[in-house]
Amino acid sequence: MSKAITPRAQDYAQWYNDLVIKSGLADYSAVRGCMVIKPYGYALWENMQAVLDKMFKETGHQNAYFPLFIPKSFLSREAAHVEGFAKECAIVTHHRLKNDPEGKGVVVDPEAVLEEELIVRPTSETIIWNTYKTWIQSYRDLPILINQWANVVRWEMRTRLFLRTAEFLWQEGHTAHATAEEAMEEARRMLDVYTRFAESFMALPVIRGVKSPAERFAGAVETFCIEALMQDGKALQAGTSHFLGQNFARAFDVQFLNKNNEQEYVWATSWGVSTRLIGALVMAHSDDDGLKLPPRLAPIQVIIIPVYKNETQRATVHTQALEILQQLKKAGFRVQYDDADHVRPGWKYAEYELRGVPLRLSLGEREIQQHQVEAVRRDTREKLYLPFDQLPEKIGDLLDQIQQDMFHQAKNFRDQHITSVDNWDDFLRALEEPGGFVYAHWDGTPETEIRIKELSKATIRCIPFPEQLPDDGPGNCVLTGKPSARRVLFARAY
Amino acid sequence: MSKAITPRAQDYAQWYNDLVIKSGLADYSAVRGCMVIKPYGYALWENMQAVLDKMFKETGHQNAYFPLFIPKSFLSREAAHVEGFAKECAIVTHHRLKNDPEGKGVVVDPEAVLEEELIVRPTSETIIWNTYKTWIQSYRDLPILINQWANVVRWEMRTRLFLRTAEFLWQEGHTAHATAEEAMEEARRMLDVYTRFAESFMALPVIRGVKSPAERFAGAVETFCIEALMQDGKALQAGTSHFLGQNFARAFDVQFLNKNNEQEYVWATSWGVSTRLIGALVMAHSDDDGLKLPPRLAPIQVIIIPVYKNETQRATVHTQALEILQQLKKAGFRVQYDDADHVRPGWKYAEYELRGVPLRLSLGEREIQQHQVEAVRRDTREKLYLPFDQLPEKIGDLLDQIQQDMFHQAKNFRDQHITSVDNWDDFLRALEEPGGFVYAHWDGTPETEIRIKELSKATIRCIPFPEQLPDDGPGNCVLTGKPSARRVLFARAY
Ligand SMILES: [Zn+2]
Ligand SMILES: [Zn+2]
Repeated sequence: MSKAITPRAQDYAQWYNDLVIKSGLADYSAVRGCMVIKPYGYALWENMQAVLDKMFKETGHQNAYFPLFIPKSFLSREAAHVEGFAKECAIVTHHRLKNDPEGKGVVVDPEAVLEEELIVRPTSETIIWNTYKTWIQSYRDLPILINQWANVVRWEMRTRLFLRTAEFLWQEGHTAHATAEEAMEEARRMLDVYTRFAESFMALPVIRGVKSPAERFAGAVETFCIEALMQDGKALQAGTSHFLGQNFARAFDVQFLNKNNEQEYVWATSWGVSTRLIGALVMAHSDDDGLKLPPRLAPIQVIIIPVYKNETQRATVHTQALEILQQLKKAGFRVQYDDADHVRPGWKYAEYELRGVPLRLSLGEREIQQHQVEAVRRDTREKLYLPFDQLPEKIGDLLDQIQQDMFHQAKNFRDQHITSVDNWDDFLRALEEPGGFVYAHWDGTPETEIRIKELSKATIRCIPFPEQLPDDGPGNCVLTGKPSARRVLFARAY
Repeated sequence: MSKAITPRAQDYAQWYNDLVIKSGLADYSAVRGCMVIKPYGYALWENMQAVLDKMFKETGHQNAYFPLFIPKSFLSREAAHVEGFAKECAIVTHHRLKNDPEGKGVVVDPEAVLEEELIVRPTSETIIWNTYKTWIQSYRDLPILINQWANVVRWEMRTRLFLRTAEFLWQEGHTAHATAEEAMEEARRMLDVYTRFAESFMALPVIRGVKSPAERFAGAVETFCIEALMQDGKALQAGTSHFLGQNFARAFDVQFLNKNNEQEYVWATSWGVSTRLIGALVMAHSDDDGLKLPPRLAPIQVIIIPVYKNETQRATVHTQALEILQQLKKAGFRVQYDDADHVRPGWKYAEYELRGVPLRLSLGEREIQQHQVEAVRRDTREKLYLPFDQLPEKIGDLLDQIQQDMFHQAKNFRDQHITSVDNWDDFLRALEEPGGFVYAHWDGTPETEIRIKELSKATIRCIPFPEQLPDDGPGNCVLTGKPSARRVLFARAY
């Protein structure tokens, strides 16, 4: 195969990069830090968007759209937000080009300088809360349950496709509530939505929990997150949901008349997931031969490949293949038929393996005589023969099975890579072998958190919810030996 | 009603503005030139997107995503593009904020200056063709049929919601072809798609044609457009499709090995429509009481309003209304039930009239006794009684009828506002009364085109396709008296 991919064992980072580019998900662009999401990658994102958007709407949210630009002064309004937020961003200072007086293309017109610089949104809390101020007067105007699908920019020097790019696509929910309880409920509800999406659609098991203060979103009172494990033993944050308290309402002076006829600051949440999830999907499931996409999100769920030795066979196979194609299309599968005649079936097999198509059907004269089609699962490479009768139903079952098996495969791997440790040597050892999550006591101070990170490159991924990981109560900090209320989950992370 | 709207006859521009804001479609933002698209307006855009996206995919296109930023030098590559394109744009010059040394929030870090300025995309031909260079080697790589849904920015000082804003949302198709014929065919095909969308979904009759050289897209060989008429007699360009020839391929050196084994520059098209269409939709159909949305795009197609005098009645009506709601939801209608009890039915009637909901159902005890529901059409205000039996079917028929009637209403208006004139006095008179399109001879020179614009504020909207408007052959220019090959369509325009 011409599209050789670096094996994971040789260079995991290079494997990931090769895979993303060669499978046609994305590519680098001429603009430093910005990627091009290619049609195959974008189709995957569209499928993710469709599922999430439906979930958001089912939980009462509406979409809206707010400006790309944020006045510089807005970022200064919420102290923790401006302190904690990375200040690497794209800054618009001028609004006009003019012809170069020396005749070399265009130059920035120095006279067209903006009175106040505009920041390309790194996230939209500030511009949205400035808008909510004009929408909210009384408790009758609440709750506001809004989501935005948008591009955001955070300047990055070292970029990795999907995982870390200056520009990325995401959704950001921004809700406003009359009570703290309701806002907290909303923040938890959206974490549930993300969990369901990750586990049921991405086939990605996640651990849900609360961030430590140091890892909290800048401006949040509490940050909830879901944490997933990649095949190299590194964790990846797959979604966050923030209870913002009244911080942004105070910063933008958004008050409402509550039911007791008193002015009160509005309670807020925000929550988001991004195209980073595509990176997670790639790293959680794929192998050295290519992607493995879960059927519920795969742009192509089934690929049909004809096999023939001569023109007569070709005609027979073609007719039968088209019939199956129509049958599966009608049943609602995302199915394609590859009848290109300038490449051999083996080349096509490798190509669709690379692209992670969950199920490949091959059809030759022998299969037709036996009234069946050869099916190969991408996840297990298992080969099966499916009779023509009830083909859509059989394929539906098989895709469901693949979806489930991929989840369990990932979950088994994840479960084998959670290690409870009680001393520092074991902590360091567990990060290397088996790798993954390390469940250990921490004395609760930011100083220790920082020291652990310096010594091990591991960070606190979350304080898991009780139902997520059994907690055996108080103990002693793995680094300092000081008292600890409970174990927290560490890992090296993307 | 508290939400009074300026009547059209009094101030058309103010009427439009009032309507957009008070119906909840959009609002101004704190960022000069940028609007907030509110949930109701965004839901309308989502419906438009869904229809267009399906049409694009049915004609073989795939979505992808390219960077928000364009290196300044890219804009200089295609001479006509940089010359003709407005140079008012958002220019990113720095990539870092830092804490103000004087303690006042944040300031731009002067050391974080970009080597080359980045322009927030006003349109993406340059960045996309720079990318296509790496994707295209041989005729086997063609055609590339890609669409992008994105935000774009063109700096504007005087803004009008949806019609002219610095940032707006749009889709931009960018296709690459092996032959001029195929590219020309594609440009025409997408104009057909836009026509079908405008007429069948927006209920907006359009005239299709070719732009005069002066009105062509910067960098295009030929620009096709659809032109619609607003109620104030001004035209609005509702979509453009460009045959770009080999201009961008030359500028970015995109060549391919053709079937004769020769290197050849690739042929291109681009085409787009934007949130401007929402402005067109508002101005084409609405009246002094509010929006009139065509059923096929309306976020709410049917609103159910209960009418009751006491709690007993309320319970009865509520039960029946919920049954109808479920029945209509199940049948696939976008239907809502407004059972808020702190406002009276009359207030709700006005509210949903303002929001342009095509069909309002009211249900009281009398209607229930008579086994029917009262229905009022937003477009004609006609009142009908629909028996409970076969309600979904009846409502489906009624919505279809409203859709058609809105189109014919707009078409009649449009047809009454096309005047053929043969001298300059009649030209000026027709622009005032009846207003709208004026069909007149033009000598074909850009000088006359500019002069006509200066004297009358009318521009050449298009040279209509023969099947669109009958052309009576050669004549004499309405301004200069010089020979003219055919009539062209003038109007004052948005
Ligand atoms: Zn292992
Ligand atoms: Zn008139």
